[in-house]
Amino acid sequence: MAITLGPNQYGKAEVRLVTVRRDGPVHHLKDLTVSTSLRGELAATHLTGDNAGVLATDTQKNTVYAFAKEAPVGEIEDFGLRLARHFTGTQENITGARIKIDEHGWDRIAVGGAPHDHAFSRSGDERRTTAVTVQGDRAWVVSGIDGLTLLKSTGSEFHGFPRDQYTTLAETSDRILATAVTAKWRYQGEDLDWAASHTEIRRVMLETFATKHSLSLQQTLYAMGEAVLEKRPEVAEVRLSLPNKHHFLVDLSPFGLKNDNEVFYAADRPYGLIEGTILRDDAEDPGPAWDIH
Amino acid sequence: MAITLGPNQYGKAEVRLVTVRRDGPVHHLKDLTVSTSLRGELAATHLTGDNAGVLATDTQKNTVYAFAKEAPVGEIEDFGLRLARHFTGTQENITGARIKIDEHGWDRIAVGGAPHDHAFSRSGDERRTTAVTVQGDRAWVVSGIDGLTLLKSTGSEFHGFPRDQYTTLAETSDRILATAVTAKWRYQGEDLDWAASHTEIRRVMLETFATKHSLSLQQTLYAMGEAVLEKRPEVAEVRLSLPNKHHFLVDLSPFGLKNDNEVFYAADRPYGLIEGTILRDDAEDPGPAWDIH
Amino acid sequence: MAITLGPNQYGKAEVRLVTVRRDGPVHHLKDLTVSTSLRGELAATHLTGDNAGVLATDTQKNTVYAFAKEAPVGEIEDFGLRLARHFTGTQENITGARIKIDEHGWDRIAVGGAPHDHAFSRSGDERRTTAVTVQGDRAWVVSGIDGLTLLKSTGSEFHGFPRDQYTTLAETSDRILATAVTAKWRYQGEDLDWAASHTEIRRVMLETFATKHSLSLQQTLYAMGEAVLEKRPEVAEVRLSLPNKHHFLVDLSPFGLKNDNEVFYAADRPYGLIEGTILRDDAEDPGPAWDIH
Amino acid sequence: MAITLGPNQYGKAEVRLVTVRRDGPVHHLKDLTVSTSLRGELAATHLTGDNAGVLATDTQKNTVYAFAKEAPVGEIEDFGLRLARHFTGTQENITGARIKIDEHGWDRIAVGGAPHDHAFSRSGDERRTTAVTVQGDRAWVVSGIDGLTLLKSTGSEFHGFPRDQYTTLAETSDRILATAVTAKWRYQGEDLDWAASHTEIRRVMLETFATKHSLSLQQTLYAMGEAVLEKRPEVAEVRLSLPNKHHFLVDLSPFGLKNDNEVFYAADRPYGLIEGTILRDDAEDPGPAWDIH
Repeated sequence: MAITLGPNQYGKAEVRLVTVRRDGPVHHLKDLTVSTSLRGELAATHLTGDNAGVLATDTQKNTVYAFAKEAPVGEIEDFGLRLARHFTGTQENITGARIKIDEHGWDRIAVGGAPHDHAFSRSGDERRTTAVTVQGDRAWVVSGIDGLTLLKSTGSEFHGFPRDQYTTLAETSDRILATAVTAKWRYQGEDLDWAASHTEIRRVMLETFATKHSLSLQQTLYAMGEAVLEKRPEVAEVRLSLPNKHHFLVDLSPFGLKNDNEVFYAADRPYGLIEGTILRDDAEDPGPAWDIH
Repeated sequence: MAITLGPNQYGKAEVRLVTVRRDGPVHHLKDLTVSTSLRGELAATHLTGDNAGVLATDTQKNTVYAFAKEAPVGEIEDFGLRLARHFTGTQENITGARIKIDEHGWDRIAVGGAPHDHAFSRSGDERRTTAVTVQGDRAWVVSGIDGLTLLKSTGSEFHGFPRDQYTTLAETSDRILATAVTAKWRYQGEDLDWAASHTEIRRVMLETFATKHSLSLQQTLYAMGEAVLEKRPEVAEVRLSLPNKHHFLVDLSPFGLKNDNEVFYAADRPYGLIEGTILRDDAEDPGPAWDIH
Repeated sequence: MAITLGPNQYGKAEVRLVTVRRDGPVHHLKDLTVSTSLRGELAATHLTGDNAGVLATDTQKNTVYAFAKEAPVGEIEDFGLRLARHFTGTQENITGARIKIDEHGWDRIAVGGAPHDHAFSRSGDERRTTAVTVQGDRAWVVSGIDGLTLLKSTGSEFHGFPRDQYTTLAETSDRILATAVTAKWRYQGEDLDWAASHTEIRRVMLETFATKHSLSLQQTLYAMGEAVLEKRPEVAEVRLSLPNKHHFLVDLSPFGLKNDNEVFYAADRPYGLIEGTILRDDAEDPGPAWDIH
Repeated sequence: MAITLGPNQYGKAEVRLVTVRRDGPVHHLKDLTVSTSLRGELAATHLTGDNAGVLATDTQKNTVYAFAKEAPVGEIEDFGLRLARHFTGTQENITGARIKIDEHGWDRIAVGGAPHDHAFSRSGDERRTTAVTVQGDRAWVVSGIDGLTLLKSTGSEFHGFPRDQYTTLAETSDRILATAVTAKWRYQGEDLDWAASHTEIRRVMLETFATKHSLSLQQTLYAMGEAVLEKRPEVAEVRLSLPNKHHFLVDLSPFGLKNDNEVFYAADRPYGLIEGTILRDDAEDPGPAWDIH
């Protein structure tokens, strides 16, 4: 028996980067949270503390900021690819990199009905995300959406489930369905119009959530992923994690009141959690695209 | 020397209430977090555990839900006033009540460009707030906004401040100014169009933030409050708490790069914190409107 | 009618300060979060953006760090007093200061049963707190505890409360009582052994919570404050905010099981919130000790 | 091309369970957060909304509570195994289950120096964790620690790292090293004394952190895992995720002060993030032990 070093990576997490691009008096804002991770031949630092192959995480942070000046940041997928290839291309022992980026949205403040040139309000919790993996010559891009909270006040049923000795839940043919979407989709290729893809995938998922009559959150999840794959050939696979944010009908009968799906209690915990993958059967192998390490 | 009971209150905090109102196929959503506090002659329970005067916090929660069914919730200020007066009007020893309500926004999901009848997405972190105080026959309403994050990428300077032995900050004539607005304003009267007031006060504050050239965050704070008071006679007083969410220019000179207000680091802590009150000199006395207890 | 500037203050919030003091090989750690607020004649910056009287919040931060070097930090109350008096004593227009400090605890890691010289583990969420106010020549010190979560698995009842049309809660003679203590107490005088006071006040409150048979959380709250005032003459007044962290008995009867106070569901929201003040009737006037501004 | 359902699971997340066991007047508390996930033949609900194979997440929650009554909860690993085998053993289409449990610690309050029978204080943020996976006849147990924050005020160096055009970090032979440990270890076998293993693994990791002179956080990480594997034959593999919680030396030179590793700024973001695996080369195959799905 011997003890060995298994998969490992290191980097700088949550570098907060805001850039301002001036187009005459009109300013354009980009607000990103960037995390870098490097992989490769790193046994020396683990076993002996020899750091000759350890590009400091402080240097990784500096690189993010310098790259934001050296060329326009552009789409987060492209920025991630540039950073990943820089690290794997310049450090001999670094053979892989994973760059994760969250983009936070800002809207222009309306003044007299017109969008202001340089004043903005934060557009909420939703983030556009990407996780770019470079391994040798290959690259994989998994983009997504995080923090998008949705609710349907009807058009959702749940019945026909098995009843064992621990089952007390009543069947329902009309309930509130609410969730906070974490979606990740794997692209095929990297010469894509990332912004247009993001916009359309988001639109398709939202419209499917709204219009698909739901017999279970699983059915809604599958329909959302299926719709994306049908409409967007550049997507190989969609993974969704959908908490069931329960809205329980309040029992008003002790007060002599009927509650006809009008008054709900929004619960925090516990919550259902539905996770699933929808993919093309001819999709490319994902390689390390989804690896945590 | 004797030990006595001073100011006190009790209630149920953060009752999560969601209501659905049906207008034919079109559903209307209201999503509130309601906290109730009762005040009055409560020495018995404190000194001896005699609860004859303690309307259970569970009952207070039930009352919130029942009231949401018995009549349309309406504006949060009105809902708060109804609840407060119910508690002070029905419990002999309860002479005061404070009802705090946060309203969370939802937007309709667009399907094919048109707003959907019953599918919604959460509109972000911003909350419309109110804190209603009833004491005997009198009532005070303090409404506000919470969680509204704003940023100007130019139009902000900071200079002319004193320099002591601990001062290192450089003066600047062009910086990013960012904040997360917590605003509270005290209304005069209660026969008001609360929704219209909220909309207009929010608009005035946003427009002022955007257009007022800023020499200090204090100046921006005052201008925002002053504009509200100038435009809205129903407001007696505005209190603002504005964190200065620092965006520091990254020093790119070690990399041979110039940073012409393009690349910023968004810091978490510490942050500046500017707090101030703007009021009419002929405003009614606030009474207990702002009391914590 | 004219619009005027009311109460206001500004400062740097949440300066994270960690100091290491070396006593030979033995290191002593202090981990503080310091927030400064200055008050005084500040109309100029609000009205015209003239910052001649605005000691920059960046300077305030620098001062915190420099003071931590110039003399041992010592107890948080003393550090707060030193900082407050520095600001009011050196800036002509600054007539008041409020310094808030949270102290985070660290325990020594045990190695072979003995406490290590320079390795520590964080001792949890609990913070020792202080809020020091200096106004002209006077000073007020309000210290406290935050984030101390307590639970009794018996010795708590709740009954005898009024029943109106919205009451459904059953009476109970045996329930779990759990809370997260936020305590603040106002000291009289400032030539005190702050550390000893803190230790004893904490002990008295914990022992009272444990041993006082509780008929309501209000009774427990009062008993905790009363015990402090009885034992500690240096304390003029105690304010407690005690959420009732509900632990509901799970109804196991549908599964043919009896639940004899064995299995509980720990709820998040809503929660009861009990707030109260216990004070000496001959206590000094609090002045601005409790003011938010 | 066809679209298919890939890996998926569903369950109830974050069921808050507190149990009280009475040993005469002495009460014993267990405070758990339990999350269940079921896997198997679940295509029907995804594709058509047929829920005949979907044991409701509400039923899963009920099962957690009922099981806590039917037999003593015991160690979290055993409780997880019991729950997982119940689900896979009773639902024909359910072939796999993942049960995740966090255990929150409570200390007895000391009264007059002696531990109280039924009054407790929360012992902090640290959680003992487990993730039990059952797939057919096989079971895997990955246990761990979360939220354990550690700091060494000396005994840590960082130098010898490469310097490229973006490197500005100075080398250091004496720095603060701080981290928040997330450790997970895979057990071999399931007939183990889980509590003793947990206690010893925790002790070994803490002692190694304290005593290992560190040339990089990677070296500390490896040493912590290696020590566990050397001492505990029941552990096949250790995975550690260690944020580098930076404590930066404050530059006091502008104030004419020397900072001899005395005054530090504790930064929030960004932070280094070091992740690694240490394993026996003859360890059993992990199977699905670490799978997210």
